[in-house]
Amino acid sequence: MAEIVSLHKDEARGLVLRDAMSDGVVRLTLNNPPANVLSLALIEALIGELDAIAASSTIRVVILAASGSLFSAGHDLKELTAHRTDADEGRAFFERAMRLCAQLMLKITHLPQPVIAEIDGLATAAGCQLVATCDLAICTDSSTFCTPGVNIGLFCSTPMVAVSRAAHRKQAMEMLLTGETIDASTAKDFGLVNRIVPKQYLQQVVNKYAAVIASKSPQALSIGKAAFNRQAHLPIEQAYDYAAGVMVENMLMADAKEGIGAVLGKRSPEWKEE
Amino acid sequence: MAEIVSLHKDEARGLVLRDAMSDGVVRLTLNNPPANVLSLALIEALIGELDAIAASSTIRVVILAASGSLFSAGHDLKELTAHRTDADEGRAFFERAMRLCAQLMLKITHLPQPVIAEIDGLATAAGCQLVATCDLAICTDSSTFCTPGVNIGLFCSTPMVAVSRAAHRKQAMEMLLTGETIDASTAKDFGLVNRIVPKQYLQQVVNKYAAVIASKSPQALSIGKAAFNRQAHLPIEQAYDYAAGVMVENMLMADAKEGIGAVLGKRSPEWKEE
Amino acid sequence: MAEIVSLHKDEARGLVLRDAMSDGVVRLTLNNPPANVLSLALIEALIGELDAIAASSTIRVVILAASGSLFSAGHDLKELTAHRTDADEGRAFFERAMRLCAQLMLKITHLPQPVIAEIDGLATAAGCQLVATCDLAICTDSSTFCTPGVNIGLFCSTPMVAVSRAAHRKQAMEMLLTGETIDASTAKDFGLVNRIVPKQYLQQVVNKYAAVIASKSPQALSIGKAAFNRQAHLPIEQAYDYAAGVMVENMLMADAKEGIGAVLGKRSPEWKEE
Repeated sequence: MAEIVSLHKDEARGLVLRDAMSDGVVRLTLNNPPANVLSLALIEALIGELDAIAASSTIRVVILAASGSLFSAGHDLKELTAHRTDADEGRAFFERAMRLCAQLMLKITHLPQPVIAEIDGLATAAGCQLVATCDLAICTDSSTFCTPGVNIGLFCSTPMVAVSRAAHRKQAMEMLLTGETIDASTAKDFGLVNRIVPKQYLQQVVNKYAAVIASKSPQALSIGKAAFNRQAHLPIEQAYDYAAGVMVENMLMADAKEGIGAVLGKRSPEWKEE
Repeated sequence: MAEIVSLHKDEARGLVLRDAMSDGVVRLTLNNPPANVLSLALIEALIGELDAIAASSTIRVVILAASGSLFSAGHDLKELTAHRTDADEGRAFFERAMRLCAQLMLKITHLPQPVIAEIDGLATAAGCQLVATCDLAICTDSSTFCTPGVNIGLFCSTPMVAVSRAAHRKQAMEMLLTGETIDASTAKDFGLVNRIVPKQYLQQVVNKYAAVIASKSPQALSIGKAAFNRQAHLPIEQAYDYAAGVMVENMLMADAKEGIGAVLGKRSPEWKEE
Repeated sequence: MAEIVSLHKDEARGLVLRDAMSDGVVRLTLNNPPANVLSLALIEALIGELDAIAASSTIRVVILAASGSLFSAGHDLKELTAHRTDADEGRAFFERAMRLCAQLMLKITHLPQPVIAEIDGLATAAGCQLVATCDLAICTDSSTFCTPGVNIGLFCSTPMVAVSRAAHRKQAMEMLLTGETIDASTAKDFGLVNRIVPKQYLQQVVNKYAAVIASKSPQALSIGKAAFNRQAHLPIEQAYDYAAGVMVENMLMADAKEGIGAVLGKRSPEWKEE
């Protein structure tokens, strides 16, 4: 971790931009032009930001955006290829890159705060995986998506984990087997994005979603997001046993007392500062 | 259970109306105006009805409807709040309420007979969970749906179990994180309802669905619904191993013999009275 | 297995037609007029073909089509019924038929090569299961689909395994409980098919899909299809742990080296002949 932190602080400055928006919303921007490839340094920078956000008591919602006209082209193929001349033909580096990238995706999944992907342009391979991994995704009508690993002999096996959990099986398979690019409308049909907006309204709509979510009880949001992922793969009986317990603990927390009191008293709730 | 039965018989009379329709169809109507909240008494009454239906050899299909212009607003927040002054600040009551509500949902899931939700109006929180839990759902074009727990500091963790098994992950997350209300058309896109009909045709269409299903082999229906839920979360190899065994036993039952004989003989089948 | 192979060679000739298309595409055609029922002999013939394809180093993609105007009506009810006069009332034969049919479906799922269903007409019961099981499905606009077991007292429990993994829960339930026939457009909405095309373009579009997939790295395709099914039911953490390992091994294979080199060198890749 020491190495990661130092990389983040020294080399990676600028690969991920961080902007504090109003009311507990943080905007992270992938900034690795021209294709925002997920180099190891960028992944480490993004993990560093997410770790800081996870520890924050004031951040409520994260927006994940990208600079330029391409959301992200996925792994940095030049960086990976450079390690083919290592003594082990790259195995150790590939292992590090793939594990770290999977760790990044799970950080987003397990982050207490909801993460909204804001997409304008192409999201491909691990870039498409980022979109599939975020809790919500909002894109422009000219955005496109693909998992084109089959074109380069490297099946999108890790992007598949996220895409196959967001979309129906046959639709995920179509993306993965053909490598073809789908448009925004198809991505919405597939379940990869929540909403399509004209380019000039993208930030406005994303900010509105973020503000709506940021106005909710932070306790409820972090309980709920964690519970979603805990119960997702369980048999339904086990899922209910777990979720009913979550509800009881949630009922005993300050925000539920305040929120239910507010609705019964026909007033606005004031959430506990954590 | 003695307590539940007596509550059902004594206090809960009228909270759930039961009408025997023609041909083995039973209509249960939530009747707790104005919002059909799921008070403990209503939940117990509904469980009582479902237990009786499960034991019946003549009931083929259940319709779950609601009186008034709102399907159900979920838990009874006043009842829950009244127990905050208990010595344990409500923990025991919340535990009882949440466990009993989850038990109700699993009763519907495990009921031998198919259950069709008939929705006209708003279905929110555990009310939306009821819709998601029923095997089929048919609603009017003015019906709306939401899981607004984040607005009151109480994340809809148990409704999430049902909603996240009916809809794609990102669409479920959108409902849960924003608490926003979706219209009937969006609910159909999300997978929460099967069909949208104009208000004046709602009962006619629901009754038609019920009659169609009630005309099928009761043996096949109860085998199939149980098998659906048994195999849903299994790895596909285990699911096939289980389902192939179900098919063999089903083949040896009277209704399969009669039904296959009928189709080969070009006549209508007559199902065994159970 | 000896028995199956001999059956395939001796009795089953002609029940499944095999045509080698250009560029590593094989077309299998169900040929059991008039309804292409899945008799034991046809299932065994199809398993035989799939086993041969699995062992082939030159076949890249499989198209599964059907002769005549009906894709497949599922199990051979006459054949099943004939065994009701067996000493065991058919149990042993039903066991054999159901297990073998499930084995066929799993062969398709586990086949290294992608399988595209080409549908023109009705696909019902185990015929609908075949469509749901194939990796991709392309149908004409006049194709229809149903799981009508409830009409004959034999719930479509094994078709359910495939249908409930392709479609949302409520939509699968609607097909299974009502036995009603859905049109091509509804099937696409449900996730059962990928694309609907006019009849005169069906083969052209299917062949195009097959050619696109056949042009990809065979190594990547077989790694990816296997990985898809391995990770589908895992908790997301385990899925990523598995998939990251798959990516590392894939990176070290010849095709990934060639494919990534090609894209960086702005040339076309040449895949290793396996």
